[in-house]
Amino acid sequence: MNLSLTELRAAYTAGTVTPRDVMAMIGERCEQYRDHNIWIHQLTATELEPYLKRLEASSPSALPLYGIPFAIKDNIDLAGVPTTAACEEFTYTPERSAFVVKHLIEAGAIPVGKTNLDQFATGLVGTRSPWGACKNSYDPSMISGGSSAGSAVSVALGMATFSLGTDTAGSGRVPACFNNLVGVKPSIGLLSASGMLPACRSLDCITIFALQCDDANAILAIAEGEDATDAYSRNNPFANHARHYGLWQGSVRMGVLPAEQLAFFGHEEYAQSYQASLAAIAASGVELVEVDFSPFIEAARLLYEGPWVAERYIATSPLIQKRPEALLDVTRTIISAGDKGSAVDAFRAQYRLKTLRKAATAVLESVDCLLTPTAGRPYRIDEVNADPITLNSNLGYYTNYMNLFDLAGVAVPTGFTASGFPFGLTLVGEAFTDRRLLSVANRLQQLFQLPLGKGQGDYQPLASVPVKDQQTISVAVCGAHLEGQPLNWQLTERGAYLLSKTMSSPDYKLYALAGGPPFRPGMVVASVGEGRAIEVEVWAVPTAEFGSFVAGIPAPLGIGKVTLQDGSQVSGFICEASGLAGAEDISHFAAWRKYLAAK
Amino acid sequence: MNLSLTELRAAYTAGTVTPRDVMAMIGERCEQYRDHNIWIHQLTATELEPYLKRLEASSPSALPLYGIPFAIKDNIDLAGVPTTAACEEFTYTPERSAFVVKHLIEAGAIPVGKTNLDQFATGLVGTRSPWGACKNSYDPSMISGGSSAGSAVSVALGMATFSLGTDTAGSGRVPACFNNLVGVKPSIGLLSASGMLPACRSLDCITIFALQCDDANAILAIAEGEDATDAYSRNNPFANHARHYGLWQGSVRMGVLPAEQLAFFGHEEYAQSYQASLAAIAASGVELVEVDFSPFIEAARLLYEGPWVAERYIATSPLIQKRPEALLDVTRTIISAGDKGSAVDAFRAQYRLKTLRKAATAVLESVDCLLTPTAGRPYRIDEVNADPITLNSNLGYYTNYMNLFDLAGVAVPTGFTASGFPFGLTLVGEAFTDRRLLSVANRLQQLFQLPLGKGQGDYQPLASVPVKDQQTISVAVCGAHLEGQPLNWQLTERGAYLLSKTMSSPDYKLYALAGGPPFRPGMVVASVGEGRAIEVEVWAVPTAEFGSFVAGIPAPLGIGKVTLQDGSQVSGFICEASGLAGAEDISHFAAWRKYLAAK
Repeated sequence: MNLSLTELRAAYTAGTVTPRDVMAMIGERCEQYRDHNIWIHQLTATELEPYLKRLEASSPSALPLYGIPFAIKDNIDLAGVPTTAACEEFTYTPERSAFVVKHLIEAGAIPVGKTNLDQFATGLVGTRSPWGACKNSYDPSMISGGSSAGSAVSVALGMATFSLGTDTAGSGRVPACFNNLVGVKPSIGLLSASGMLPACRSLDCITIFALQCDDANAILAIAEGEDATDAYSRNNPFANHARHYGLWQGSVRMGVLPAEQLAFFGHEEYAQSYQASLAAIAASGVELVEVDFSPFIEAARLLYEGPWVAERYIATSPLIQKRPEALLDVTRTIISAGDKGSAVDAFRAQYRLKTLRKAATAVLESVDCLLTPTAGRPYRIDEVNADPITLNSNLGYYTNYMNLFDLAGVAVPTGFTASGFPFGLTLVGEAFTDRRLLSVANRLQQLFQLPLGKGQGDYQPLASVPVKDQQTISVAVCGAHLEGQPLNWQLTERGAYLLSKTMSSPDYKLYALAGGPPFRPGMVVASVGEGRAIEVEVWAVPTAEFGSFVAGIPAPLGIGKVTLQDGSQVSGFICEASGLAGAEDISHFAAWRKYLAAK
Repeated sequence: MNLSLTELRAAYTAGTVTPRDVMAMIGERCEQYRDHNIWIHQLTATELEPYLKRLEASSPSALPLYGIPFAIKDNIDLAGVPTTAACEEFTYTPERSAFVVKHLIEAGAIPVGKTNLDQFATGLVGTRSPWGACKNSYDPSMISGGSSAGSAVSVALGMATFSLGTDTAGSGRVPACFNNLVGVKPSIGLLSASGMLPACRSLDCITIFALQCDDANAILAIAEGEDATDAYSRNNPFANHARHYGLWQGSVRMGVLPAEQLAFFGHEEYAQSYQASLAAIAASGVELVEVDFSPFIEAARLLYEGPWVAERYIATSPLIQKRPEALLDVTRTIISAGDKGSAVDAFRAQYRLKTLRKAATAVLESVDCLLTPTAGRPYRIDEVNADPITLNSNLGYYTNYMNLFDLAGVAVPTGFTASGFPFGLTLVGEAFTDRRLLSVANRLQQLFQLPLGKGQGDYQPLASVPVKDQQTISVAVCGAHLEGQPLNWQLTERGAYLLSKTMSSPDYKLYALAGGPPFRPGMVVASVGEGRAIEVEVWAVPTAEFGSFVAGIPAPLGIGKVTLQDGSQVSGFICEASGLAGAEDISHFAAWRKYLAAK
C-alpha cells in the first residue's frame, strides 16, 4: 500500500485500514530496512499509544491529517522524546514539541520517529552520524544525501507519508533528489523554527519531503503560519495562500544555466539526465532562457567560506567549547572554524552578499523561476568517507546560495539515470513564491509521470485545477476583450488568464454599439422569452488588478453580473440602456466573433 | 528674502531675481555667519560659474529646481570638490558627484558648498570637527546637533533652500530639531548611497533638511530612485509615490511613550515643550495611544554597544589602521573599538535585534505612526566638550534604533521652549511610509504655524490637498454606500475616504429598485431633457481594493461611468435596464437620503 496522502485518506475514509494497521505495517517496514540507518529514535508501542487512542476517539472527517504518519528529523523537537542532533552528548528531552510538529499532530498526524541526520545538520551527505551512514533508498551503497537523510529515506521507502527536514545549505533538497521525492524548501520564516535546533539561525528552514506536490502543499498549509515566539517567523503576505496551489496552466519562462556554469563533477549520467529533463520540459511548451548563475555560485561559496559558520558555532555552544571531542571529527573541523572570524569580516561578507543579491534579483526578475539541477551528482558512501569535505562541498554547488538570498525552492524528480538512479531539478523563486513553485513543480510531475519514491506506486495525475497564484475574480467578456481581440491585452497585462470558453444563460441580447474603433458589443438582459445564449470567455483577473481594469471601461459599458449557461453568476460586462442608441441588434449571431466575421 | 522652494521659484518665474543674485546674497550670508563654522568648502565664484552659466541658458520653467541653492554634507561627493568627512588626511577629490547630487544638479539645483560635520559622521553633536564646532542657528553657545551640522544650520540661516545630510544614528533628525527644520530620514535605499562615504554601510541614509514639508517632498521626488550601482538601493514598492504626498486629512492614531520611558536628561523646558506639543496635537483630533518603547530603547543601545561599530571601522580603513592619530581623539576612541568584535558577537547581536524587531513590528502595527521627541534635550558646546561621549549618547535615545529596524522617520518642529529654543517631534513608520509620514508632518506644520528656520519668514499654509497614500479610483455612490448608509462599510473597510459631496450632471433618473433590504437605488441616464441632477458622494477607493468592491455588487447594479455636475466622469454605480422592473421613479427627490426620509 502506498502512503500518499490521497490514497491513505481514501483508505481511512473507506474504513479499509485503521491508523493502528498502518503503524503496524510501518513497524514491519522499519524492521525490513533497519540496515539503512534511518531512525535515531523510533516511537515505541507505548509512545504511539496515546496518538492512536486519540484517533480512535475521532474520525477521518474530523481531522485533516487523520492517521497520517510522519517522520521528524532529529534536530526538531517532539515532546517527551530525545533530540540528539546526531550527537549523543548534546542530547536533551524537550517538554514541548516544535511549533510545526505541534500543529501537524493537532491535525491528526502520527509521529513515527526521529530520523538520522548529518550531525548538527552540517553536511549534505547523510554519512556524518554516529548512528551510521544513512543508505540510499535506491542503492544502499550510495549516500542518501543529507543532512535530512533519514527523513527523506523514510518517505521514499514507505515508512511515512511525509517528513520534516531542515535546510540551511540544501539539506531539504539534495536528499529529495537522491531518493525520488518532492522537497519543499519554504521561504525563511514561513514555517516557524521554534523548537528546531539552529544550524545557522538566520538562514534555517524546516522543510517537507513528500511523494508528490499535492501532498507537500497540503502539509505546508497545515504547518505554516506566523509564530510570535520565533523572531525569524514571517507572515506570508499573500492571503489565502493554500488556495493558490494547483496545476500550473499558464505560460512559464524558466531561467537555465549556460553550459559553462553547469557542473556535474564527472558524472556523465547526471549530465545526460539533466539534458533529457530539459528537452522534455522545453517540448512541453515551457520557455527556457539562459541566465547568468555566477552571482549564485559566488554566494554559495560564502556560506562556508564566509562568516556564517559562526552561526554554527553559536548553535553548538557551549558543547563545542567545553567538549569538542564529543563531535565527529569532520563536524568539529567545520564548526570549530566558526569562532575565528571577526565582526569586520562578517559585515564585509554581508556587503558582498548584498551586491550579489542585487545581481540575482535582476536574474530572477527576468524569468518566472530559475531551474537548476538539484545536485550535480551522487556519490557512493565509501567515496564520501574517503574525502568527506570536498565531495560534500560539491553537493552544495546548486543549493548553498538559496537561504543567503532569501529564496524559496522546490526540488522535484524529473527522471532516472541509465543506471536507474533518481535525478531531479529544483525550481527557485523569490521569498513567498512557494505556492507558485509547487504549482509549476506539479506540472512537471504530471509531465514526467514517474513512479513515486522507491516502490511507492505510480503517480496519480490530478484533475486539472487552474492555479490561483493570487486571488482572482472571474470576469465574463464578450467583445473586444476576447482572446485575440484588440483589447485583450488589458486582461493579459494584468496577469489574467483564460478560465473557460462558454455561453451565457439564454437571457441576453447582443448589440453592436455605435462608434469605434474599437468596435464593441453591448450585452443586455432581454425581456422574458426573447433572449438567447451569447458566447463568452471567462477570465481570471487578479483581484488587486481588477479595479484599474474596471476604471478603464468607458460608458455606456460597465461591470456588473452576467449569468452563465450553468446558472452561475460571474462579474461581466453590462451596458446602460442609454448606450443602445444607434446600436444594431446582432443577437442572431450569438457571438461577437461571428458578427465580425460576417461584417 | 526667504529661500523656501515656493517663494524662490515664484521669484525666479516673476523675474525679480536671478540665480546669480541669489548666490551673491548667499555669499554675503555665509560671510555674516562665518563664525558658525558651517562650511568646510564653500564653492568659489569660479566653481559656481558653470552652474550659473547653464541656468542662464535655461529658464525657470525648464528645470524643476532651477536655481535652487543646496548644501551638501561633506561625506557626500560633489565632482571636482574635495570630500573630507571632516578629516584632513582622509581627503580625496571625486571625479563624479554622488548619484543623488547628480540628479539634483541635473534638475537645476546649485551646490553652495560642502558642510561641516562630526568627523566620519560619528556623532550627534556637531562639535567633533577640526573645522570647529558648528554653532546653533538660534544660540551660538549651543550645539547645532550633528553629525549633519552645517547642512542643518545652512538651511536654518538662509544659505540654502535645502541640504543633504546623512543619518545612521540620528544625524538627519537631531540637527533638524535643534534648528527648527524638517528633517527627512528616508527608508534605507530610497535615496541611493552611491558617492556617499559610509558610516555603517548597512544602515546609512542620505537625508534632506528643508524649511517645510512640501519642499522636502519635492526634493525627495527628484533625489529618489533605485540605483543599480548601490547594493543597498531599493525600489519604492509604492508606484507614483510623489503623488501620495499632501496634507493629511484622515484620522491618525499615533503611538506615544509612557511617562517612564520618556527621557529629557534633566531638561525641564524640553519636557514642557513635549507636553505642550502633545496636548495641541491631541486637541487637533489626533488619537494618541501609549505604546511600549522598550524594544526601541534596547535596539538603540545595540548601535554603539553592539557589533555595528565594526562597520565604522571598515569605513575608515585603512586610515584608522595606518595613521590612527589622524582622527580626532573622540572619533578614534569610538571607531577603533570596531575591530575587537567577533563574527560570533555579530550574529548574536543580529539575533537579538531580530527579536526586538518582532516586538517593534507589533507596536507599529497597532498605530498609524509612532511619535517621539526628536531629541531629549539640547546641550551647550562647552558641556559637550567637557563630556563628549555620554552627552552625545543621550542625544541618540530617540533616534539610534531607527535604521537598525529599517524604519522611516520625519522630524518636524512643533514649538519653542520658554527660552526660545526650537523643539520638535519625530514621526516614525515602516520602510517606505516616507510620503505618509511627510503628509502627517505637513498637517502638524499647519497646526503649529511656526516661523521657518531661524528668521526665514512665516509658514505658508498650503491649500488643502487630500493625501493619496495609495493609488485610488474615484467612485460616485448614490445609495446604500453613502456615508452613514448600510453598505458604507464596504468602502471604509477598504480604506476609501470621502472626496466630495456633489451632484451628478442633470442627465439622470433615480429609481428605488424592487426588493431589499438593503434598499437600493438605480441611477440611469435619462432621455434627453428628462433628467435631473442627483446627489452623489465621490469616494477615493484604493485601486488594489476596488476590484473586490466591484465584484461584490449584485445585479442589476454595476460599476460604469457617471458624469458629475462639473462635466467630469468618474467610476460610479450604473443599473441595467432589466433591473428597473417594479422600480419606483424617485427622481423628484434628487437624493436617496431625501427619499428615505420621506418614506
